[in-house]
Amino acid sequence: MQQDTSKYSLITPSAPIATPTHGGRAKCLQRLLRLDLPVPTTVALSFDAIKSIASGELPDLGAILGHFDPDDLLCVRPSSESPDWGGPSAILNIGMNSDRFSELSKELGATAAAELYLRFIQSYSVNVARLDPDMFDHITGTDETAMREALRAYEDETDEEFPQDIATQLAEVLRSMARAWDGTSARLLRQAKGAPADAGLGLVVQKMAFGLGHGKCGSGVLQLVNSDTGASQITGRYRTQSQGREALEQTKGALYLTRDARGPSLEENAPAIYQKLVSHAQLMRRKLREEMQIEFTIQDGELHILDGVRVARKSRAAVRIAVSLAQDGIITKEEAVMRIEPRALGELLHRQVDPEAPRDILATGVAASPGAASGKIVFSAEAAQASASRGEACVLVRRETSPEDIRGMHAASAVLTERGGMTSHAAVIGRGIGLPCVVGASSIRFQMNKRRLTLPDGRILKDGDIITVDGTNGQILDGTPPMIEAALDDTFQTLLTWAEDISDIKVRANADTPSDAQTARNFNAHGIGLCRTEHMFFDADRLTVMREMIFSDSAMDRRAVLDRLLPMQRADFIELFRIMQGLPVCIRLFDPPLHEFLPSDRAGLLDLIEASKDGAPVVPEIMIPLVSAKREVELVKTRVDAIAAAVRTETGQSFDYRLGVMVETPRAALRADDIALNSKFLSFGTNDLTQMTYGLSRDDAGRFMSTYVKQGVFPEDPFHVLDAEGVGELLRIGVERARRERPDIVISICGEHGGSPESIALCRKIGIDYVSCSPFRVPIARLAAAQLAISEKIG
Amino acid sequence: MQQDTSKYSLITPSAPIATPTHGGRAKCLQRLLRLDLPVPTTVALSFDAIKSIASGELPDLGAILGHFDPDDLLCVRPSSESPDWGGPSAILNIGMNSDRFSELSKELGATAAAELYLRFIQSYSVNVARLDPDMFDHITGTDETAMREALRAYEDETDEEFPQDIATQLAEVLRSMARAWDGTSARLLRQAKGAPADAGLGLVVQKMAFGLGHGKCGSGVLQLVNSDTGASQITGRYRTQSQGREALEQTKGALYLTRDARGPSLEENAPAIYQKLVSHAQLMRRKLREEMQIEFTIQDGELHILDGVRVARKSRAAVRIAVSLAQDGIITKEEAVMRIEPRALGELLHRQVDPEAPRDILATGVAASPGAASGKIVFSAEAAQASASRGEACVLVRRETSPEDIRGMHAASAVLTERGGMTSHAAVIGRGIGLPCVVGASSIRFQMNKRRLTLPDGRILKDGDIITVDGTNGQILDGTPPMIEAALDDTFQTLLTWAEDISDIKVRANADTPSDAQTARNFNAHGIGLCRTEHMFFDADRLTVMREMIFSDSAMDRRAVLDRLLPMQRADFIELFRIMQGLPVCIRLFDPPLHEFLPSDRAGLLDLIEASKDGAPVVPEIMIPLVSAKREVELVKTRVDAIAAAVRTETGQSFDYRLGVMVETPRAALRADDIALNSKFLSFGTNDLTQMTYGLSRDDAGRFMSTYVKQGVFPEDPFHVLDAEGVGELLRIGVERARRERPDIVISICGEHGGSPESIALCRKIGIDYVSCSPFRVPIARLAAAQLAISEKIG
Repeated sequence: MQQDTSKYSLITPSAPIATPTHGGRAKCLQRLLRLDLPVPTTVALSFDAIKSIASGELPDLGAILGHFDPDDLLCVRPSSESPDWGGPSAILNIGMNSDRFSELSKELGATAAAELYLRFIQSYSVNVARLDPDMFDHITGTDETAMREALRAYEDETDEEFPQDIATQLAEVLRSMARAWDGTSARLLRQAKGAPADAGLGLVVQKMAFGLGHGKCGSGVLQLVNSDTGASQITGRYRTQSQGREALEQTKGALYLTRDARGPSLEENAPAIYQKLVSHAQLMRRKLREEMQIEFTIQDGELHILDGVRVARKSRAAVRIAVSLAQDGIITKEEAVMRIEPRALGELLHRQVDPEAPRDILATGVAASPGAASGKIVFSAEAAQASASRGEACVLVRRETSPEDIRGMHAASAVLTERGGMTSHAAVIGRGIGLPCVVGASSIRFQMNKRRLTLPDGRILKDGDIITVDGTNGQILDGTPPMIEAALDDTFQTLLTWAEDISDIKVRANADTPSDAQTARNFNAHGIGLCRTEHMFFDADRLTVMREMIFSDSAMDRRAVLDRLLPMQRADFIELFRIMQGLPVCIRLFDPPLHEFLPSDRAGLLDLIEASKDGAPVVPEIMIPLVSAKREVELVKTRVDAIAAAVRTETGQSFDYRLGVMVETPRAALRADDIALNSKFLSFGTNDLTQMTYGLSRDDAGRFMSTYVKQGVFPEDPFHVLDAEGVGELLRIGVERARRERPDIVISICGEHGGSPESIALCRKIGIDYVSCSPFRVPIARLAAAQLAISEKIG
Repeated sequence: MQQDTSKYSLITPSAPIATPTHGGRAKCLQRLLRLDLPVPTTVALSFDAIKSIASGELPDLGAILGHFDPDDLLCVRPSSESPDWGGPSAILNIGMNSDRFSELSKELGATAAAELYLRFIQSYSVNVARLDPDMFDHITGTDETAMREALRAYEDETDEEFPQDIATQLAEVLRSMARAWDGTSARLLRQAKGAPADAGLGLVVQKMAFGLGHGKCGSGVLQLVNSDTGASQITGRYRTQSQGREALEQTKGALYLTRDARGPSLEENAPAIYQKLVSHAQLMRRKLREEMQIEFTIQDGELHILDGVRVARKSRAAVRIAVSLAQDGIITKEEAVMRIEPRALGELLHRQVDPEAPRDILATGVAASPGAASGKIVFSAEAAQASASRGEACVLVRRETSPEDIRGMHAASAVLTERGGMTSHAAVIGRGIGLPCVVGASSIRFQMNKRRLTLPDGRILKDGDIITVDGTNGQILDGTPPMIEAALDDTFQTLLTWAEDISDIKVRANADTPSDAQTARNFNAHGIGLCRTEHMFFDADRLTVMREMIFSDSAMDRRAVLDRLLPMQRADFIELFRIMQGLPVCIRLFDPPLHEFLPSDRAGLLDLIEASKDGAPVVPEIMIPLVSAKREVELVKTRVDAIAAAVRTETGQSFDYRLGVMVETPRAALRADDIALNSKFLSFGTNDLTQMTYGLSRDDAGRFMSTYVKQGVFPEDPFHVLDAEGVGELLRIGVERARRERPDIVISICGEHGGSPESIALCRKIGIDYVSCSPFRVPIARLAAAQLAISEKIG
């Protein structure tokens, strides 16, 4: 890239400083200057300047020092394009030497002057001369004696005098920082955080405000919000006679910023300066349109703003900050929506292990249902129910779960299984009822008879031991690490309402039970996109009956069983429709050959109809699964229409329904034009479609997909991120052909992929009307959809 | 359809008679007239004429009778568009009545005249008046007494006098024939033979040549070839004082045509007439360009040609007739090729149960390997080997076969299993070694311990009972029905050579073993399109070793096992390459993850190379299976290329190979452009591709596909006939994208579909270079390919 800006620029309101050439810190300091804030004189060195220095060129010291007084002390701080990419440590007090020590002793007092020099000697030795920090271990205190001992230690170690010339000092600092940026570990670290291979480093050289000496002196940091919650709250620390961020590092003896019962505060000690500081912070928030943390120094009663950085924040704080900024008219709603990473919302939907807490990871498995919970280990559903009746949280441990375990799952706080994947019984139920769940933890030896677990490292867990299941990360943790509660508060709802207003693709939920439906409704889903009737039978009461049906030999036997089953299902439908009233509900028929009798069965259809009469009208959508040819649709349609007509005649009631197809086979996608002929809607079932497109079952894929992704065979696991090139191509072909035949057909995708931002991007591009995902992913999908709409609008 | 030809036409060389308006018989008679053959006066009634009569219009008798003398007797015969579609029985001697009886008694003698009248009364009563044939049961003889009894029986039954007026007789005959054609059973019968719903009936009204009376009188049929073999041989019968085809129906007392040691012949009795007849037949063959059967009558020493029909023939005869006609310059080679139904060739490749012999079908199963064989039932491979050593043919009966049964299969004449489908072990091996095989005969109860089979009807078969396995039709037959031997003779080879010259798509064979390869070579396959290395291990010796490999835990263990396995495989490769020398051989690698070490393994590659050095050069083609992404190809290619380079350096020998991909997943087809980048060839594996496109396993499909086909959900079972709309669409997309990226890429299909005429049509249309099919299907595929090329040329 051609750099036409100067390599060395004094930062002024009009200097040619830009983040991509000088880094974020240099740009931020320029913005603060433009706000007339009291920023000390600063020179910015561009990425190109540092690159030249790293490659051996001498720095142009004249271009820096020319902007400062000969007596000024200087500091150098890194300025990379993104603050997340790290950088070398700041070096303060450059320019200190024996002569300056003498002069400053007179000016600030010997103690302050000695401390300034001592700090410089120490950081220069460690960060620039790369000496062992242990060499200063014997030095206690910060007075002149300590300073002289440090000078001696440096000379002993290097056989040279400590450099006394500011030009030499600055040159060495710049060179060491430039090289540190090029080191292998620094490079790997920043690339892991998303930095490109050629990410550049800029540096800023600033005149020191000492924070030490006569009069009111000290340093601190301030921000206007709480980093954990995002709530409006002046937060920070101040320490007299200190430099940099010492007030945060050594909080003992530090002052609160605002009046506080626990101790003295800056607000009381220096009310005028405090007020000025707060008003500076508010100005920065308004003009920089972001919550900023201010680094400030008071020197003999005068306030200096040294730096401003974006406030670090947890996900929930990020949501509140963005919403507040928009509500205060500082940013637009669109900007607020754009500022939240959709996946980060996941953290807000469930209770989580505090990401900053230490973790004792006992084993890992498949992250099957998000959220975290702790409890005593139990090995049976009965034990889980007993535990719940005693009011004790428990984790249900099973080889795999089956419908007989449902009551135990409801009683447990979390579930851990040896077997299964994302579509196993435990995973499906866990996600449905919001129960944290790790499945397929096959590295643990499950000794169910002995009621114990042998961990990969040989440790043994017994009945009653306390563990934590982290279903978000697929980890089993020892004990009870600190948790962060779910945060589905007003701010969260406000953000989602904005997202809903902006997004141009609808979001429905996959919901199989009334409880799923309630979650979907709470998240304002635009309806149910996939209701798998067979999942209604994942319940012990109904399972036995259901099994009888599946294994019965004749159609007549099946019908008899069905007569017992239908009333159960009918109650569920009525409840589910009541919850979803006014919204569409799409019901998938049983897979063939079961769909031969349900609900093209008259009683089944009656269910739907009776349920839809109750409360506000619901127009049921009937979806035929596993179709490959037009004729299959015709056959089912003829049957359903005939039954509906008969029911209409019999009951004298008019009602409506819509018939569509679940496109799960490559053939159905290729023949979407044929299939559209008799379909009001098509819904792509991307789980099965992915399996068939790759010729892999999801379980097979689990065994080698991570290796494949690592080797770059596939950019991502197609069962996690929709495969845009393969499956996406079938979607594109399918949508194009279906619309050619029937332009008004409603097209959607359902399946695990539905809620991912990448899938939504693809769906918008090829003109899909809505996505349907698990209820807890609805907010994520909606936010992603809104961001895509905004990105497109702003080009 | 607008008919502008006359409804009633005297057949003359220039009359406007055409098969689609008047039927094949009318047209043939016109052709015979054009050859100046002695055909009696004939009037053709068009389809429209008969349609009018069927709907109630009176026939225009004047337009018919005007062409005959008042004294002529007439016959009426059907003339539909295709002779296969059937039609009402011919009625002879129309015009007979009491007056004509008196006159003819003088002319021909009372006996002949009575017989003429008797026949007419009988056939009129049964076919026109629809009376019960039993009414004539008491009448014996054909003399005047018999005739009078018949007249009385008619009058008793109808209370009417037998119609005496020729106009009345003819009108009733025409009306009854027209209505018979419209009857439900006639309609269903002809539609089952491929007639369209609106197929028309024409009729021909011909002056009778009696074949009875004074002088040399009689009737007969003659053809120049044997219907079973197609060999040149004057064949037929003649009977004095007879009408129609009586000579064939009552052979007792009939004459041979040619001089014959067994009895008198027409050649001896009437040499001049005989010579004239043969020369008429030869003229017809030459001018009608087909082997015709002549129906003739001699009336008082004068020869009349009444009719000519295409000689009925068995498949082997069809081949010989077509080849002879072409060799005699009567038709072109292209026409000869067009005259053989490709599927009929299947009958010639294997020994078959005579299709005309009665069958006692004991049970049915999957027709897994074609051909038929009889033998004693044995229940173990050892018993089969023992039986073979005694020289006794046996049928090996197993629940399912496994590699331990291979020796027994080689020893048996046929195999019958309870389980499995088209891709089961028994089926694959059976087709490979040409052993008739029926699998999945689950309607039989296999009681292996008791060594007996209980049939669906309760009959029991024991060890030693003789049955016949018809692997072509999937039937188990009782005893030893008559067989037809395979007919891979010179004529067959000649036809295939012509087909090969004409066809514009190549045909290779799928061959896994040297014995498959030999069959492929015998059928002139253009190489091997699919050699599945793992099938080389379907052999008891190797299987144990192979299993060790598959179940071994580490890559190192696998390699150790491989070192034992490779020498076995190497010998097979050397033999297979020797057989195929000069032709390409395409070897599929193991499915992943086995392909990680074979034959990208150095030793494996050496195998290929060593084998290809032996004899004439073979350029091995290495095919990667189950690919879905470009990167998979890159990884394998890098590995194979590196190993090849190392081997080149080490051995100092140069050699060549080509790397390609087996496209078996929908994704690979969709990304064929990416995959073509690193591939010299692509081969579509349509078996797996069909499974994935429909989301069905072949075994699953077996359970319901026949119901689906019957209901018209799918026009055909896509595992039997390539699904042009779904799988074919993926092929089309794949070919287009691959060629866009790499125009010179060689593209083929392999799999069970490869040899079917429908698949070949599709492959030609989308520009596929060759098809690969099982060795025994190579001739069928080649013939189909030639026919398609010819059809396209003649538009």
